Amino acid sequence: MSKIQYSVAELAERFALSFKGDDARIIDGVGTLSGAGPTQLSFLSNSKYAAQLGTTRAGVVVLHGDAAESCPTAALIARDPYVTYAHIAALFERLPAAAPGIHPSAVVAAGARVSPTASIGPCCVIEDGAVVEDGAVLGPHCIIGTECVVGAQSRLVARVTLVTRVTLGKRVLAHPGAVIGSDGFGLAFDRDHWVKLPQLGGVRIGDDCEIGANTTIDRGALDDTVLEEDVRLDNQIQIAHNVYVGAHTAMAGCAAVAGSAKIGRYCMIGGNAGVLGHLEVADRVTITAKSLVTHSIREAGEYSSGVPLQENRQWRRNAARFKHLDEYARRVSALEKDKNDD
Amino acid sequence: MSKIQYSVAELAERFALSFKGDDARIIDGVGTLSGAGPTQLSFLSNSKYAAQLGTTRAGVVVLHGDAAESCPTAALIARDPYVTYAHIAALFERLPAAAPGIHPSAVVAAGARVSPTASIGPCCVIEDGAVVEDGAVLGPHCIIGTECVVGAQSRLVARVTLVTRVTLGKRVLAHPGAVIGSDGFGLAFDRDHWVKLPQLGGVRIGDDCEIGANTTIDRGALDDTVLEEDVRLDNQIQIAHNVYVGAHTAMAGCAAVAGSAKIGRYCMIGGNAGVLGHLEVADRVTITAKSLVTHSIREAGEYSSGVPLQENRQWRRNAARFKHLDEYARRVSALEKDKNDD
Amino acid sequence: MSKIQYSVAELAERFALSFKGDDARIIDGVGTLSGAGPTQLSFLSNSKYAAQLGTTRAGVVVLHGDAAESCPTAALIARDPYVTYAHIAALFERLPAAAPGIHPSAVVAAGARVSPTASIGPCCVIEDGAVVEDGAVLGPHCIIGTECVVGAQSRLVARVTLVTRVTLGKRVLAHPGAVIGSDGFGLAFDRDHWVKLPQLGGVRIGDDCEIGANTTIDRGALDDTVLEEDVRLDNQIQIAHNVYVGAHTAMAGCAAVAGSAKIGRYCMIGGNAGVLGHLEVADRVTITAKSLVTHSIREAGEYSSGVPLQENRQWRRNAARFKHLDEYARRVSALEKDKNDD
Repeated sequence: MSKIQYSVAELAERFALSFKGDDARIIDGVGTLSGAGPTQLSFLSNSKYAAQLGTTRAGVVVLHGDAAESCPTAALIARDPYVTYAHIAALFERLPAAAPGIHPSAVVAAGARVSPTASIGPCCVIEDGAVVEDGAVLGPHCIIGTECVVGAQSRLVARVTLVTRVTLGKRVLAHPGAVIGSDGFGLAFDRDHWVKLPQLGGVRIGDDCEIGANTTIDRGALDDTVLEEDVRLDNQIQIAHNVYVGAHTAMAGCAAVAGSAKIGRYCMIGGNAGVLGHLEVADRVTITAKSLVTHSIREAGEYSSGVPLQENRQWRRNAARFKHLDEYARRVSALEKDKNDD
Repeated sequence: MSKIQYSVAELAERFALSFKGDDARIIDGVGTLSGAGPTQLSFLSNSKYAAQLGTTRAGVVVLHGDAAESCPTAALIARDPYVTYAHIAALFERLPAAAPGIHPSAVVAAGARVSPTASIGPCCVIEDGAVVEDGAVLGPHCIIGTECVVGAQSRLVARVTLVTRVTLGKRVLAHPGAVIGSDGFGLAFDRDHWVKLPQLGGVRIGDDCEIGANTTIDRGALDDTVLEEDVRLDNQIQIAHNVYVGAHTAMAGCAAVAGSAKIGRYCMIGGNAGVLGHLEVADRVTITAKSLVTHSIREAGEYSSGVPLQENRQWRRNAARFKHLDEYARRVSALEKDKNDD
Repeated sequence: MSKIQYSVAELAERFALSFKGDDARIIDGVGTLSGAGPTQLSFLSNSKYAAQLGTTRAGVVVLHGDAAESCPTAALIARDPYVTYAHIAALFERLPAAAPGIHPSAVVAAGARVSPTASIGPCCVIEDGAVVEDGAVLGPHCIIGTECVVGAQSRLVARVTLVTRVTLGKRVLAHPGAVIGSDGFGLAFDRDHWVKLPQLGGVRIGDDCEIGANTTIDRGALDDTVLEEDVRLDNQIQIAHNVYVGAHTAMAGCAAVAGSAKIGRYCMIGGNAGVLGHLEVADRVTITAKSLVTHSIREAGEYSSGVPLQENRQWRRNAARFKHLDEYARRVSALEKDKNDD
């Protein structure tokens, strides 16, 4: 493969950045401040890494104007270096080649509709009534069930399963092992055994969403499970039936949202955090890692639960006391009452 | 596909329900109180939704006798409307067609035994010594390893893997990405490195169990891992080696049970709850979401751990104090002692 | 299949053990103390099972010298019976047959390099630029992406996906549903929407590592995500981008490590425990189940967070008090001050 190359001047122009130093330098990749070489671009965004700037061997560094003076090499000045770096780095990303057409090992039902500009990888299975739109790329081993739609320019990296009645918007990116449209967990208890509630709804995923590896999103019981546009889900997230996630919300790995919960827009749900069923979470709410949302949240802000990590013996002593916390609180009140009665 | 249709009178007769209103009405589907139209059936079970009854446009509503008067449309009167609704809704579920036979892209070993009434989907792999019984349906990409049995009428929706020595009972339903019979996590530490303990047992899953998407159930080290009948597992659950789960127990998403734990019958394990290894949990125990079971539970009841969610700054102040809880408890005792010494 | 058989004398010689009782006895398998029959070997390691020794029907028992007198059958005396048992049991494990060669249903790109002694199972997909080394075994449905290497004698049980730039060392064992090399979760927030940071690094997995079912390991953003040798990961573990895990560390099911965290050697991470991003954890640290590591750990030892399980009504009273813990602490201090002012 031929190298992807840009001069510093070309990058400055393309992203409307000012620069400092040698703008003729040719850049063919990106790297960390400590690891980048003279043909690579790096960035400084987190002040924690400022000390590495002085000794970087990078060809050019994207940074905030405040740091330009300390930069020993060419610099591209950005209002938000991390965002600018993200855009530049995308120029150097090599996605696997995906020629239009259907791999001969794929199994495409006669009643499926696949755009001639879509790419269908080895061993994919596309069932009757499924639709794959223009420019979509399905890596190996994807399964597109009946009444499912893969929107234009979406990319299912490999081994993604859309079960039934799943609609992906445009430019959706789904990683291996993701399962979208599996049955919600709906059961009614009939005297001495469980009766399954048929799960008849679907899943609607908006444009520009990203779905992590081994993440699961269940179909709704009657209405649909919904992710609005630009929702970003990390790996191993569980979204139960009839959950509604507002646009631009991001969830870190192993988060879980129980049935019929409604999450607002621009929320940040931390790793392994949970939201109980039927709750509502307002816009712009941050939930820290491993917290459990046990009541609806009406106001933007940051919310947490849990207790801090301690050395095990210390922790044991404190944890044992937790079992009597109500009693201690009463004893404090009693002491105060005694004092006031004196 | 032709529509599935029942008159209200037919439904009343089939499920032995009394009714109110127009029993000739034709029903061709189900929906929510707020979303159902005049040819759809809905239900009222949770009083939270009672306000929606007055304005429903549903053709008929399944409800408790107490609510019949408030129903503006035909009503089917049920002792437990949710259970009755579950049974009726099942009539309208359209499962993907599954003709008996083996898809030409499937790879079935000469030493496998597949019932002629079973349906084996595209790209399935069935290894030597595996058995698929009458009427079982394997969606695309299922793998049935050696010494595995898929019981009659079981349905593996898609991409389910049975590794080795797994026996599924009748009418088991397994969702995409489930892995059953993977090696348990058995290691012995030999001075400076790990030695793997061969995992030689199997997994036995009883009749009418349901296994969620991306759930994992390990094979036993020597004896089998067991789920009795009608155990219901949601998505992303982890069942370690030699766990034993009693009949009719249900676990919500992301729950995890460590090795050799024994869970009783009719238990309810909440989302992301955990049970440590080698513990026993009695029948009819409920564990709330995200709780960790750290000791055996001998009595039926509801059990919890964790602390409540709070706004982050408040939470920080309280969490910091938790690190000194033992000290506070001692100081309270000291104050009490001083008082008594006065 | 012919039986695998060893006499007690052969086992004693092979593992340099002394023995007691009938050394001519023929052993053809292993079992638990309570379940093993006269041609099976069992072991006693955990004193909890000592009571079962007296009534065992096993042909021979591996045990510590202290227990030899109580053994009613032949005994093999070991310094560490569990480790010795692990080595002996491996003799009796029957791995699925894996003849060298490529199954006709596999799709191997012209630019892939597969050793003639490797075994490639049904429906595997091996992309251009991938390498599978000598004696490696790929079960059904594995996907080996571009620039990935499967080291010699490694075994991917079934349905393992290596996405891009993943290098497995020798004798790596990966279980079904594992995804290695998926994109890290890297996003920059650009005013009102997310911009994806290209994930350009890889994953390096050392010799003798084990990767559990449905575990996910993301590729690095720029540098690689790394597991040193003999790292043991259970099922459903999430390893984020640029995590570094030291040799011989073991993690139990559902543990999760956030981006750029560095875990030491010989650590034990409990089930569903978490480590926040960018932290460092020293060598020989144990984290108990469901704990969250919120700060770097500089010293070996055992660390915990969480509160104990209680009956729900008791727990509710204590949990409610936690929300005012800071206030109680202040009230205790005020009482002490009052007392001292008296």
